[in-house]
Amino acid sequence: MSGSTKGFMAMKGAGYYSRATIGAKHVMDNAAGLVLDALERMDPDDDGSVFRVTDMGAADGGTSLAMWGRVLARVREKVPGRPIEIVYTDLPRNDFSQTFQNALGLTGQETYAGKVPEVYVLASATSFHEAILPPGTLDLGFSATASHYIASVPCEIADHVHMVGAAPEERAAYEATGAADWERMLLARAQEMKPGARLALFNFGIDEEGRYLGNTGGINMFDTFADLWRGLRDEGVISPAEFAATNFPQCYRTEAQFTAPFLDEQGPVWQAGLRLEHVEARVVRCPFEHNYSETGQGAAEFARDYIPTLRSWSEPTFVNGLSDNRTLEDKAAIINEFYGRYQARVAANPTGHAMDYVHIYLVARKEG
Amino acid sequence: MSGSTKGFMAMKGAGYYSRATIGAKHVMDNAAGLVLDALERMDPDDDGSVFRVTDMGAADGGTSLAMWGRVLARVREKVPGRPIEIVYTDLPRNDFSQTFQNALGLTGQETYAGKVPEVYVLASATSFHEAILPPGTLDLGFSATASHYIASVPCEIADHVHMVGAAPEERAAYEATGAADWERMLLARAQEMKPGARLALFNFGIDEEGRYLGNTGGINMFDTFADLWRGLRDEGVISPAEFAATNFPQCYRTEAQFTAPFLDEQGPVWQAGLRLEHVEARVVRCPFEHNYSETGQGAAEFARDYIPTLRSWSEPTFVNGLSDNRTLEDKAAIINEFYGRYQARVAANPTGHAMDYVHIYLVARKEG
Ligand SMILES: C[S@@+](CC[C@H](N)C(=O)[O-])C[C@H]1O[C@@H](n2cnc3c(N)ncnc32)[C@H](O)[C@@H]1O
Ligand SMILES: C[S@@+](CC[C@H](N)C(=O)[O-])C[C@H]1O[C@@H](n2cnc3c(N)ncnc32)[C@H](O)[C@@H]1O
Repeated sequence: MSGSTKGFMAMKGAGYYSRATIGAKHVMDNAAGLVLDALERMDPDDDGSVFRVTDMGAADGGTSLAMWGRVLARVREKVPGRPIEIVYTDLPRNDFSQTFQNALGLTGQETYAGKVPEVYVLASATSFHEAILPPGTLDLGFSATASHYIASVPCEIADHVHMVGAAPEERAAYEATGAADWERMLLARAQEMKPGARLALFNFGIDEEGRYLGNTGGINMFDTFADLWRGLRDEGVISPAEFAATNFPQCYRTEAQFTAPFLDEQGPVWQAGLRLEHVEARVVRCPFEHNYSETGQGAAEFARDYIPTLRSWSEPTFVNGLSDNRTLEDKAAIINEFYGRYQARVAANPTGHAMDYVHIYLVARKEG
Repeated sequence: MSGSTKGFMAMKGAGYYSRATIGAKHVMDNAAGLVLDALERMDPDDDGSVFRVTDMGAADGGTSLAMWGRVLARVREKVPGRPIEIVYTDLPRNDFSQTFQNALGLTGQETYAGKVPEVYVLASATSFHEAILPPGTLDLGFSATASHYIASVPCEIADHVHMVGAAPEERAAYEATGAADWERMLLARAQEMKPGARLALFNFGIDEEGRYLGNTGGINMFDTFADLWRGLRDEGVISPAEFAATNFPQCYRTEAQFTAPFLDEQGPVWQAGLRLEHVEARVVRCPFEHNYSETGQGAAEFARDYIPTLRSWSEPTFVNGLSDNRTLEDKAAIINEFYGRYQARVAANPTGHAMDYVHIYLVARKEG
């Protein structure tokens, strides 16, 4: 994220992310059982050593608080004599102060801290493509909805904003970067994990029916982004170069792409001792569309509630696409116009708009 | 720090703290030898386990980068086979993003990261009055210029802003709180330290000649603060209640007060195994006054350079003293007027103004 976006993100302020991402919290709450099951398959000695967990790409940590409450309570039961360290990780520009405030119970959200005894909260700003912790010190690695971010984009996407809508050669380039980054992510984790440790990764992906985030049968969210952004280009509000420079640094992977490194017994991930224990795809319904459909909420109110959840994670990409020659005010006006148009489109014609979550859930163990 | 001050601190922006506190960096650079000496007295096994250090109350971490560069390079030589974890700690509202950016080399400041191999950077927002890390996991604890902060003020100071200028009963209350917090700080560290671990604490204090920060023979900085703030009160710019509510949450301790817990063999600190290895007082000259005196800089330029170093750490206390009923703009205007008057006073009559640092340096070891 370039320096120029800092002001925008800061504007959003404390808690905006968690409120706008109630759906991301549902994803974790629903799948906490996969982490608890993984824990049951572990057989940790109650030897007084530190039991270490990571929450990688945790952002402000708000969405995972409830899940960690359940998981850490179970760790406490299994190994009453071992102190627990939980390490929240994200990129250096993340608002770690907010993360700490959420985890330590200073924002009114319920937290495990102070309830589950002997939990020590830490943070790291080392990318999950690198080694976050010393070798052999991790008991349980976790990440939700983060590994679709690639370290850098391989090329511009000429007529779209996301690799899901890219031309075939463009898409292939994103997939190659996505595969390389996924392997780096897994190898770095394999180094960190103790023998018998578990890794639970809940990632955005593409399921067997071709569904992915915001594309589950209704109106395709990424096509809508691209269409509205193209409109601003065609009207001359943004330049063709700005349109081309707007690319989500993301790769959505299929289940086959996620599992490939685990299946190649000659490959580095298998050689490093990582073994796949569980994989499944799930769709989690958009809470805003759900609310709208079930309660007879008005279209305008739905649109107003719905847009912030898109905006919370997509805004930096559109801001970054804009020229550095623009003033902050100019950028803000364009971005507000853009999301305003999205909101107007939803309000005018709400049916089919939904940001359903499509995740591939993976659990792996380290041999030893 | 109350929420209302966040805007003010954020206004100061990235790097402001480090630039304004070049003197704090001198303190650490000058005393790095004490930490290196402590390291030489240690005899750590090169057994592959994690070598863990803390930098407690590190703020943005900028002032200690050079010191850690020397210390961690020496750790690397002594135990080439042990990964190093460095844990930066401060309070939850600290800008940990800035701390990570400094430590990881993203701000242009030279850092050990990437140069000294196998160093893992972490952070914690747990107060140093509590347990930051699990028992028995710390090899080298460090803190500079932070333990004078007490967890809460015991009472208002009627006619001053700092305990160094308080009436005797007020001062006694601050000293009692200071003693209790110092003992909590030391006991929490004793728990964290491995047998043979070292603790190096460089704290603001009062030396045998009665000198302390900004009071080394010339004009007393805290008396100047109090005098200017009183002036605003007497002119009706701030209310008497606001004046009384303005109290630095700090206790400056004498060498005797610092060492007392180490000398009482029946007391909890001794019983917890902490032993004093070294204590000394030092004065580090104010770099702004030094520059002014040596270069023949003009008085106005001196005043302009000097005030930010005072403001960087004192501003939150004056902001917090103001009523919550005031708007942010109103508060900003008062605070700007206050520091403007300080600057004008220095410019008109520069001689005697200096924020010389007076520290008590302590090194302790954990028996084992
Ligand atoms: C959509 S948020 C997910 C937040 C949270 N885990 C959840 O599920 O609600 C993705 C986060 O991943 C972070 N991220 C992206 N790339 C990363 C990397 N290489 N290392 C660590 N974090 C990264 C982003 O900064 C962002 O905070
Ligand atoms: C003057 S700064 C020192 C920064 C740096 N160590 C140096 O010497 O340049 C003091 C820092 O201590 C922090 N601090 C105060 N009380 C604390 C506590 N109880 N636990 C951790 N940090 C604390 C403050 O937030 C502040 O960042």
